Amino acid sequence: MYSAFETEVRIRPDDIDLNNHVHNTKYLDYVLAARYDQMINNYKMSMDEFWKLGYNWVVSITYIEYKRALTLEDRILVRTQVDSVNGAQCRVNFWILKKENRKAAAEGYLIYTMISTTSGRPVRVPDEVIERYSV
Amino acid sequence: MYSAFETEVRIRPDDIDLNNHVHNTKYLDYVLAARYDQMINNYKMSMDEFWKLGYNWVVSITYIEYKRALTLEDRILVRTQVDSVNGAQCRVNFWILKKENRKAAAEGYLIYTMISTTSGRPVRVPDEVIERYSV
Amino acid sequence: MYSAFETEVRIRPDDIDLNNHVHNTKYLDYVLAARYDQMINNYKMSMDEFWKLGYNWVVSITYIEYKRALTLEDRILVRTQVDSVNGAQCRVNFWILKKENRKAAAEGYLIYTMISTTSGRPVRVPDEVIERYSV
Amino acid sequence: MYSAFETEVRIRPDDIDLNNHVHNTKYLDYVLAARYDQMINNYKMSMDEFWKLGYNWVVSITYIEYKRALTLEDRILVRTQVDSVNGAQCRVNFWILKKENRKAAAEGYLIYTMISTTSGRPVRVPDEVIERYSV
Repeated sequence: MYSAFETEVRIRPDDIDLNNHVHNTKYLDYVLAARYDQMINNYKMSMDEFWKLGYNWVVSITYIEYKRALTLEDRILVRTQVDSVNGAQCRVNFWILKKENRKAAAEGYLIYTMISTTSGRPVRVPDEVIERYSV
Repeated sequence: MYSAFETEVRIRPDDIDLNNHVHNTKYLDYVLAARYDQMINNYKMSMDEFWKLGYNWVVSITYIEYKRALTLEDRILVRTQVDSVNGAQCRVNFWILKKENRKAAAEGYLIYTMISTTSGRPVRVPDEVIERYSV
Repeated sequence: MYSAFETEVRIRPDDIDLNNHVHNTKYLDYVLAARYDQMINNYKMSMDEFWKLGYNWVVSITYIEYKRALTLEDRILVRTQVDSVNGAQCRVNFWILKKENRKAAAEGYLIYTMISTTSGRPVRVPDEVIERYSV
Repeated sequence: MYSAFETEVRIRPDDIDLNNHVHNTKYLDYVLAARYDQMINNYKMSMDEFWKLGYNWVVSITYIEYKRALTLEDRILVRTQVDSVNGAQCRVNFWILKKENRKAAAEGYLIYTMISTTSGRPVRVPDEVIERYSV
C-alpha cells in the first residue's frame, strides 16, 4: 500500500477558457506539477535524479473524469497515490480537490512507463525506486 | 455508424516540452481544435450555433494512450469519429496520426455531455443534433 | 508615488520549453497572475469588482527584457509597481526576481487601458480607482 | 533592406481566454510559430541547422502593441521582417493581420541575440547568416 500525498497548486489566469472555467487540459498540468513537487518533497527523488541514473518516466496513458468546474477563485489540492507498479509501468491515481470542502473537481489515473535514456526502451522499475515510492 | 473526419493541426514551438517532444497535455488540445473545425466544416453546426440553441458540450471524460512521441518537425492529422450517443452523452473516438506514414502517435476517446445553458444541467441529445452528426 | 508589491509564482513543468528553460511567453503569464493576486490582496479591488462596476482592464502594450533564463528548479517573485496613470491608461512596471538572490530574470512594463464594458470604449480611470491604487 | 514574409497561423480553442478573446501571451506564440516556419521555408535555415552550427537564437526583448481583439473565428497572418542586424543582435518587426481585411490586430518587434551553444555567450551574427537573411 502506497501513501497518498497532497500538493496545493495555484490556478493562473492563463488557465481559464472561454467558459470562464479552468480549461480541460490544464487539469493534467496541475497533476504533473503536483507529482513533480512530490517527487522532490515526498519521495526525495527528483526527476533530475532519475535522469542522472539514466531513467525517464514517460506518460503512457491518462484517464480523467471531470466532476466540477473550477474557476480562477478556487483553491485546489492535488492528491496523488501510487496504485501499483508492474514491470516497467506505474499507475498513479489522482484527485483534484476543492480546498474549501475537499469535493473532487476531477479524478483519474496516469500510467507512467520507465524508459532507459540510453536504449530509449522500457525497463523494469528497479527495486530501489519501488522502495523510495513505498514511503 | 458515424463518419470519421480528419483535420490537419500544426504543432507550435510553445507545444514542445523539456524532452523536445510535444507536451502530453497538448495532444488533447489538438483533438479539441480538430473537433472545433469539424463541427463547422463537416457537421455544419458550429459551437456558436449550439450556444444559440441553449446547449453546450462539456467534456466529462478523456482517455488517451500515447504511442509515439511527436516533435516540432512532425505533421499530424487528427482523426475523430462519433462512436455512440446515449442520453446526454456522446462518445468520440480519436487518433492522432503522423501524416507521413499514418502511424498513430496517440489514440483515445472523449465523453462529452450536453448541457442546457439555462438550467446548467445535462439534457438528452436532441434528435436534430444526432441527425447532423449522422453525416 | 505608488507602492511596489511582490508575489511568489510557482513555475510548472508545462512552462518549460525545448531549451529546458521557462518559455518566453510564460513570463508575462506570471506577471498577469501576480497582478491578479495583488488586485485582491493589496489593492483590495479584484477583477470581479471591476467588472461589476462596468470596467475592464485590457492590456494595450507589453515590453519585456529577458535577462536570465529560468529553470523548473527556480523560485521566483514577481514585483510590480504602478508607474503612472494618464487618462484611460495605467503603466505598471514589473520585475521577475530569482528568490534566492533577488537578481532580475526579466523586467519590463505593461500599459493597461480601462474600458467601459457597456460602450466597449476607453474611459478615464476614475479617481476612486486611483485612490485604491495609491496604497 | 530585408524581405517581409507572411505565414498563416491557426487560432486554437486553448488560446482563448475568459474574455472570449485570444489571450495576450498567445500573440507572441503566433509570432514565434511563424518565424519557425519562415526560417525553414523562406530563409532555408531551420533552427535545427543553427543548433548544428553551434548557434542558438534567444529572445532578449519583446514589444507588442495590441490593437484589435482576436476571436476563435478569426483567420490571421503573421507578417515578419528583419529590421536590422547589429553585432550579436537581430531586430525583427512583426504584424499580426486579420486575413479578411489585413487590419493589424497587433504589431511589435523582437530582439534576438545569437548565442554560441559551446560558450553560452553572445556572438557576432556571422556573415553567412546575414546573407541567408538577405533573401
